[in-house]
Amino acid sequence: MTKSGTTESFEVCFLPAGLHAVVPGGTPLRDAARLLGVEIESLCGGRASCGKCLVRVLESEAGEDGLHSQAAHVSELSDAERRARAAGRLGDQERFSCQACVEGELVIYVPEASRVGRPIVRKRAGERECALAPAIRKYFVEIELATVGESRGDWDRLQEELCVRFGLDRNLAVDPLALRTLAEALRGGRGRLTVTVWQGREAIRFEPGFSERVLGLAVDLGTTTLGALLCDLQSGQVVAQASAHNPQIRWGEDIMNRIASAKPPGQLAAMQQAVAEAIGELARDATLAIDAKPDDVVEVVVVANTVMHHILLGLDVHSLGVVPFSPTLSRSLDVKARDLGIPILPSANVHLLPIEAGFVGADNVAAMLAAAPHVSEELTLLIDIGTNGELVLGNRDRLLSASCPTGPALEGANIRFGMRAARGAIEKIRVDPATHEVRFRTIGVPRWSDRQPPEEIGARGLCGSAVLEAVAELVRAGLIDSTGRLYSELPCRRLRQGTDGMWEFVIAWAEQTVIGEDITLTQADVRAIQLAKAALYAGSRLLLERFGAEQPDRVVLAGAFGSVIDLERALAIGLFPDCGLDNVTAVGNAAGDGARMALLNVTSRQEAELLARRVEYLELSTARGFNDAFVAATQLPHAEDRFPSTETRWSPKAAAG
Amino acid sequence: MTKSGTTESFEVCFLPAGLHAVVPGGTPLRDAARLLGVEIESLCGGRASCGKCLVRVLESEAGEDGLHSQAAHVSELSDAERRARAAGRLGDQERFSCQACVEGELVIYVPEASRVGRPIVRKRAGERECALAPAIRKYFVEIELATVGESRGDWDRLQEELCVRFGLDRNLAVDPLALRTLAEALRGGRGRLTVTVWQGREAIRFEPGFSERVLGLAVDLGTTTLGALLCDLQSGQVVAQASAHNPQIRWGEDIMNRIASAKPPGQLAAMQQAVAEAIGELARDATLAIDAKPDDVVEVVVVANTVMHHILLGLDVHSLGVVPFSPTLSRSLDVKARDLGIPILPSANVHLLPIEAGFVGADNVAAMLAAAPHVSEELTLLIDIGTNGELVLGNRDRLLSASCPTGPALEGANIRFGMRAARGAIEKIRVDPATHEVRFRTIGVPRWSDRQPPEEIGARGLCGSAVLEAVAELVRAGLIDSTGRLYSELPCRRLRQGTDGMWEFVIAWAEQTVIGEDITLTQADVRAIQLAKAALYAGSRLLLERFGAEQPDRVVLAGAFGSVIDLERALAIGLFPDCGLDNVTAVGNAAGDGARMALLNVTSRQEAELLARRVEYLELSTARGFNDAFVAATQLPHAEDRFPSTETRWSPKAAAG
Repeated sequence: MTKSGTTESFEVCFLPAGLHAVVPGGTPLRDAARLLGVEIESLCGGRASCGKCLVRVLESEAGEDGLHSQAAHVSELSDAERRARAAGRLGDQERFSCQACVEGELVIYVPEASRVGRPIVRKRAGERECALAPAIRKYFVEIELATVGESRGDWDRLQEELCVRFGLDRNLAVDPLALRTLAEALRGGRGRLTVTVWQGREAIRFEPGFSERVLGLAVDLGTTTLGALLCDLQSGQVVAQASAHNPQIRWGEDIMNRIASAKPPGQLAAMQQAVAEAIGELARDATLAIDAKPDDVVEVVVVANTVMHHILLGLDVHSLGVVPFSPTLSRSLDVKARDLGIPILPSANVHLLPIEAGFVGADNVAAMLAAAPHVSEELTLLIDIGTNGELVLGNRDRLLSASCPTGPALEGANIRFGMRAARGAIEKIRVDPATHEVRFRTIGVPRWSDRQPPEEIGARGLCGSAVLEAVAELVRAGLIDSTGRLYSELPCRRLRQGTDGMWEFVIAWAEQTVIGEDITLTQADVRAIQLAKAALYAGSRLLLERFGAEQPDRVVLAGAFGSVIDLERALAIGLFPDCGLDNVTAVGNAAGDGARMALLNVTSRQEAELLARRVEYLELSTARGFNDAFVAATQLPHAEDRFPSTETRWSPKAAAG
Repeated sequence: MTKSGTTESFEVCFLPAGLHAVVPGGTPLRDAARLLGVEIESLCGGRASCGKCLVRVLESEAGEDGLHSQAAHVSELSDAERRARAAGRLGDQERFSCQACVEGELVIYVPEASRVGRPIVRKRAGERECALAPAIRKYFVEIELATVGESRGDWDRLQEELCVRFGLDRNLAVDPLALRTLAEALRGGRGRLTVTVWQGREAIRFEPGFSERVLGLAVDLGTTTLGALLCDLQSGQVVAQASAHNPQIRWGEDIMNRIASAKPPGQLAAMQQAVAEAIGELARDATLAIDAKPDDVVEVVVVANTVMHHILLGLDVHSLGVVPFSPTLSRSLDVKARDLGIPILPSANVHLLPIEAGFVGADNVAAMLAAAPHVSEELTLLIDIGTNGELVLGNRDRLLSASCPTGPALEGANIRFGMRAARGAIEKIRVDPATHEVRFRTIGVPRWSDRQPPEEIGARGLCGSAVLEAVAELVRAGLIDSTGRLYSELPCRRLRQGTDGMWEFVIAWAEQTVIGEDITLTQADVRAIQLAKAALYAGSRLLLERFGAEQPDRVVLAGAFGSVIDLERALAIGLFPDCGLDNVTAVGNAAGDGARMALLNVTSRQEAELLARRVEYLELSTARGFNDAFVAATQLPHAEDRFPSTETRWSPKAAAG
């Protein structure tokens, strides 16, 4: 009853795309789908061995004679399908689309797992959807073992097979070091092997038999810490994470120290090697967690600030330390892992996202990629707070950026009891406006200090968000005035002059700490926060002025700090312009998210390149009006600007009243 | 009186090409030439600083008013030209074609030195002309040092300058390791630097200021020896040579031993490293001779037999030792020098020519490139004699190849007193047909033995060519019959039975040698030569048969051995088919010549790729009729075939008569 051999044509509808095609009888479902641009996954190139191109035959219109059963509109099960069904790998209605051919009108459902480029819907708020289009694809191939009379090499024959079966370029290149493993892979798989291809251009790995997993690493290379997300490039999922301190810390804590340390002969190479090995260790740790090997990492994307970016590439950083802070390279670059000395698959590609300008690095480009100010009509202010505060203001029409010299106060550095956001750091602070009593919470302790026995509080110091909250709380309590002066007309047992004569406010008494002394916020700490927030606010103001706008439509805070701070309190002290609290979001490690997007989707890399070139960089240190804006912004919340969202509850007057 | 500012057009003729163009007044001569496809050299991109684009203004037609002097038809001297003329670098009629503009009708002569792709006429007989079109070009560029407000990196700006000024690809890549030297080159040259670009695709070197010299290395990697020609890629000249023993000899003398030695873990890598370092030493020796450095070598071409080719690439050689002798790779490959561990410029490209089949390697492809059987209607038999004899028979329509198991006898191995062609080796032998007295010459001694005091003869052994000559001479003298038996009916004091009972002929008496014993040719030696020449001849015969031809039109002998042997004596014993002695040429190291061609001209690389794929390989060991042909060819000169060119003077009968 089948119609094989007929030259009739039939309509096939593919769901969920809902596309219709009329194809000749005998056309494999996969080819019919392809005609419509519905790409069905296929690793084995139509050999029915990968099981990736599975579809469901949903229903079919009756044929013109009204007699055909649904099954009659599609070709009979192939041997491979029969085996798969017997093994339970192929359900009743399911078919391999490379095997099943159209023999009548059909409605076919293509499950998400079978679709190429299926979108990943990201779960976290503020995250951008990212379609899967990684630089890496794997192909399962079978070639005949060489016979007498065959003069072509194994690679030559494999290359032809990849061209013919998968449509890869005739000039498909092969990594010369990867080629060393070809003979063994062919022997091990008896002619069946899996070839990993980068960008459709170069074969970079040969594995015996069928190997499905494709792993990539997104690395956020910071001055202080390195974070890595190990991603499955076929599902888009993060399958493991790892982080570590940047081993370059022994050459100096901050960027300027690193630049100076890189100058003596051999030091740059040593710093380069240290960070390359550290990335290798992240790869090792992350792959170990899922029972894989560093050699399974076949693609890496790195985002970093300009100095870290240059050191990883072994590029001279001297010019980054002096005006005009000019980089050797700003556009993106692809480098073999072995050329950087990163101990993963030697032929793996490492993609470095482009950098924008002297101090605005690839990390900021990645943050833009993730926060995507450029895809919207809304005017977005993106604030990425690290040792520098990096700002992007813009929308789909125009993008401006600036780097604000905030200093490290917001990260808890240069604060008397400041510390990194680690166990024992006080991260949240509440001050009773009336009694001036303090409650706080430390990282790693789930409850507030007032309900805890002292030994469980275990406070060691203040992290950046706590310092900022403390300032906001003390302003509301009337203990800090709008100029930032720490004082009280009324007696307050927590407010005192320290041994150095400087005024300070006790946040935790010695008995609540594990360091045996009172943890205080000093007048100098308040000044440091004022300077940091003034730099950030003045930078934002100048960008708005340059853009010709009064306020942004939304504010996006990126970076770990942005996720931890209390947005209301941050706004209360004037950290950023007020566009309503509902329009402020914290997106966490946007740079890391951007790196992951670039790892999962090659068009994101082009997008990043365009973004880096499109964004106009405003050098604040020489910009007219920056000093005035800065001075005005040192006031709490500001000498002139208003913060309507918070002023009823948070202004000093409210507290005084 | 000049016509600058006019919009008139004028005819310009370029000699010696004889091409005419009509161009608008004001067009630089170089641009006018380019319109006609006359490429004039320019390293500085039109800045008048390289002096490479010099042309001669020959004459000019009178303008329509009949008044214009010749000089008036071309723009006035630029400042740069004035300085060059004052310095004697620019003759009276000479102009820089990037500076001089058309202002009337002109006839311009482009000297050979100013032409891009000027042909090199090779001097040696049998050599092919080779146009210069190397993979490497240098560009002299000046970029502004970075200023405040410039956000692009040095490379980004340099890349744009290369695109705009020289028309290089917008996506011109940069080698990431070369990039490490960019900042220093820019500083050293104060913004002026020379960029070395590979294939118009990738910048691989940055040098401060103006640097002209471009060096490449053509390497002939043999099982026993390595030879290298250091070439100036701008003139095409060989500027230095170097050679060395293949350090892999400690893993075995011949190919099969090398294959076996490469099997234990780590050995292949050690062999790979040894040969890579040896190539580096050749580069060091050759560059030292002209006061350059290994890092000045920016391109390498390597030809090798299949096993040496695979070991250099670090590829598994196991399969090359067993039927069907299948290689991992047969097509050509480009590899970075650093990936092979060759200590030259790390970003230099190493191009490996393609190989044909199991035992017919890139060396044979290179020999074809040089001997060029495929460009002629004549049927050429190319014989490359090494440990194997490699044959190519063909013309422009068809190419056949085969590898003959000659054994090493023709190289002097497996011969009792055989030795390599080195000082002390007897290389020429004459036997008086009547008296059976012997004269010989040793390498390093300019005269024949009969006129030399014994101590100056200093014979140590026989090289391959001497063994072959001895056989031919003894056949003529009637001391070897057509079956190869060494005997004499008449008494002959040089013919005797050795201590092992084997017949032998004394070539040099002990007192003529430095080894203190008689140097003899034994019956076994004669048999070895018979087997070797029979393999070669039978191979040739089978190829002719497969081709459908009786005889070749010409025979080309490649390889060192082919240059040393006496062609008439070689023909007399039936080493190759007789197509007339005038049609036999020895071309020396054709493989090395082919490597040099591929180094100097990238189209030769494509030609090699096509040749390797076009040539039909005939596996002799399994070919029908080979055994019969082999047996017939063991006779001297042959059981059936005739050698008319030599038989009157050389047949045994002639001697007997």
